[in-house]
Amino acid sequence: MTGGPSTSTRSLARPQAARREALRARVREAGLDGLLVTDLVNVRYLTGFTGSNGALLLAATDDGDEGSRFGTDGRYTTQAAAEVPDLPPLIERSTALALASRAPALGIRRLGFESDAVTVDVHAALAAAAEGVTLVRAPGLVAQLRVIKDDVEVEALRRACTLADTALTDLIDAGGVRAGRTEREIALDLEFRMRALGADGPSFDSIVAAGPNSAIPHHSPTDAALRPGDLLKLDFGALVGGYHSDMTRTLVLGRAADWQRELYDLVLGAQVAGCAAVEAGVPAAEVDAASREPITAAGRGPEFLHGLGHGVGLQIHEAPALSAASKDVLEPGMVITVEPGVYLARRGGVRIEDTLVVPGSGPAQSLTGFTRDLVEIV
Amino acid sequence: MTGGPSTSTRSLARPQAARREALRARVREAGLDGLLVTDLVNVRYLTGFTGSNGALLLAATDDGDEGSRFGTDGRYTTQAAAEVPDLPPLIERSTALALASRAPALGIRRLGFESDAVTVDVHAALAAAAEGVTLVRAPGLVAQLRVIKDDVEVEALRRACTLADTALTDLIDAGGVRAGRTEREIALDLEFRMRALGADGPSFDSIVAAGPNSAIPHHSPTDAALRPGDLLKLDFGALVGGYHSDMTRTLVLGRAADWQRELYDLVLGAQVAGCAAVEAGVPAAEVDAASREPITAAGRGPEFLHGLGHGVGLQIHEAPALSAASKDVLEPGMVITVEPGVYLARRGGVRIEDTLVVPGSGPAQSLTGFTRDLVEIV
Repeated sequence: MTGGPSTSTRSLARPQAARREALRARVREAGLDGLLVTDLVNVRYLTGFTGSNGALLLAATDDGDEGSRFGTDGRYTTQAAAEVPDLPPLIERSTALALASRAPALGIRRLGFESDAVTVDVHAALAAAAEGVTLVRAPGLVAQLRVIKDDVEVEALRRACTLADTALTDLIDAGGVRAGRTEREIALDLEFRMRALGADGPSFDSIVAAGPNSAIPHHSPTDAALRPGDLLKLDFGALVGGYHSDMTRTLVLGRAADWQRELYDLVLGAQVAGCAAVEAGVPAAEVDAASREPITAAGRGPEFLHGLGHGVGLQIHEAPALSAASKDVLEPGMVITVEPGVYLARRGGVRIEDTLVVPGSGPAQSLTGFTRDLVEIV
Repeated sequence: MTGGPSTSTRSLARPQAARREALRARVREAGLDGLLVTDLVNVRYLTGFTGSNGALLLAATDDGDEGSRFGTDGRYTTQAAAEVPDLPPLIERSTALALASRAPALGIRRLGFESDAVTVDVHAALAAAAEGVTLVRAPGLVAQLRVIKDDVEVEALRRACTLADTALTDLIDAGGVRAGRTEREIALDLEFRMRALGADGPSFDSIVAAGPNSAIPHHSPTDAALRPGDLLKLDFGALVGGYHSDMTRTLVLGRAADWQRELYDLVLGAQVAGCAAVEAGVPAAEVDAASREPITAAGRGPEFLHGLGHGVGLQIHEAPALSAASKDVLEPGMVITVEPGVYLARRGGVRIEDTLVVPGSGPAQSLTGFTRDLVEIV
């Protein structure tokens, strides 16, 4: 995580401080005096804390972080001081309850809580702990902020995407994709390479699907061995500093058969059309439609079995949704995947996926650098 | 997962069916007509389903599974048929809501829900969906069952433990533990070996801590290189079929110095004493005390910084807790860790951890096979 008080040249030097400032405005708009953030992903986004027990009591005052508190337990005293240097810590085992009980003293009477993450039992305990406070359901306030990535986040995603690119390139260059190896072996090799390159892990369970298995959109790797002539679909990503990359490439073992190249070109055309439609102000459903159009025109519409893509960031699946049913509209700074696929049952499937940043103007920039041309492993 | 209707010679051939039968008794005792199980780990335990969206409506009638339903969405139709052959499926996207809405038709008026897992927002949606039904907070009913492992579970845990044993043996035999390698490299090598041996992954983020870092109980692997004379603490496990193994060994790079051997012998004595105290009917706090006693007697009590152990199964940390404050009492079929440690700040620490099954009679059986003798890498 970049930034921190010692390198500050602005009052909001850490991106987390700017995020809290933006959240305060939303909390006030919602008619609340404060928000209790307990979802760990949101806590990380707003504070930088990466431990397994932490919470933020955000006071929606005009004095910035005055009145806000970061809570964790004694295991994380040192880590909290390093990762959250700009908020007063509250060290208690039942951190969320302790924070809620402090709310009245901090002038918070209407306290929002993340009702889409807080369990019924925890809510009851919070209500008992926060005497004199009205707890108000306030789902999604942080998620709405997280939809737009700041520069620090785009850089983290770029690093994750580049690392995944490199791992795939290295795998191929090392001869790791070859007949006789199993899907599981390929997945393990790819994940091992990502870790060795510095990833904290894969960003989700890798999909490695060879031959007829490539026709299954979300296939789990098996002990099936790759055979000459197989399509090989690889959908995977790297987790770097909490951010998830996501890419799919479909290769051929050997020279592509005509039907494979035809299928590939169809999906590639759709993927290029989808990327070209990515623009601020455009409904996500229109991007889905733009990519789907050539596939439908070729009579393969029913074989494109899923939505076009999704937002990605601190979680592998975030808003916005890119699908026919989506109500989302693209905005600058959203980071999304564009991943059309066509799946011919029992023969094989092709999916091509890039991760893109929605630009303020001009063409969308892809964070995925690996070639989209058909790669034949010969 | 073993069993299944085709191999059945008893009416409750699948362990999942027996578990549901046991749960029904508890649900009735709680004064409920049924239980809506939405926690995915509990759903897996009770049905065998391993997908990412599934729920169980358990009717607490006397007719067995008559009236109970398994719900999932359309992505999992095939998988549900294979994994849950013994319950009628309900395929709907909002599975939990759909199941709740069916409750009255199945004669369920007082429906328990897992209030320790269901969010406030989902609860509100359930209440709206389940017209004519009283939703009752019912936390922990499945967790209470899961504390006692059945034979199928003990076998799964044994496989996971053996696999982790093998990975560590192979790592050492291959010369993988040596000066110059980093903690991260060792962790990656160990995890790679577990995957290659058939694990679905590590059962938690591996702890690999060399030299002074071994004095930090939960140290994350760094790029620090191992040096001759270092203690090397490895706390790791394999995930196999949903079950988590958990073991810790502390090695020495080279011949152990006197203080290292002394520390090791102290912790080993404590670990042996802890294991010897594991017996059905014994309070968990007494096992903790039995293991802690020799450490305290040596004046190292303050340097044993954590509880003695925990239950392990479908989750890496489950009931019972083995600590001074624990109210749990050991019962046959519990699977627990015994893991004393002594940590000398800035010098080094030793922890030794086995996973044990609490026996009906006789001495406790360890699922961890790797030697507890001090291993010197020379």
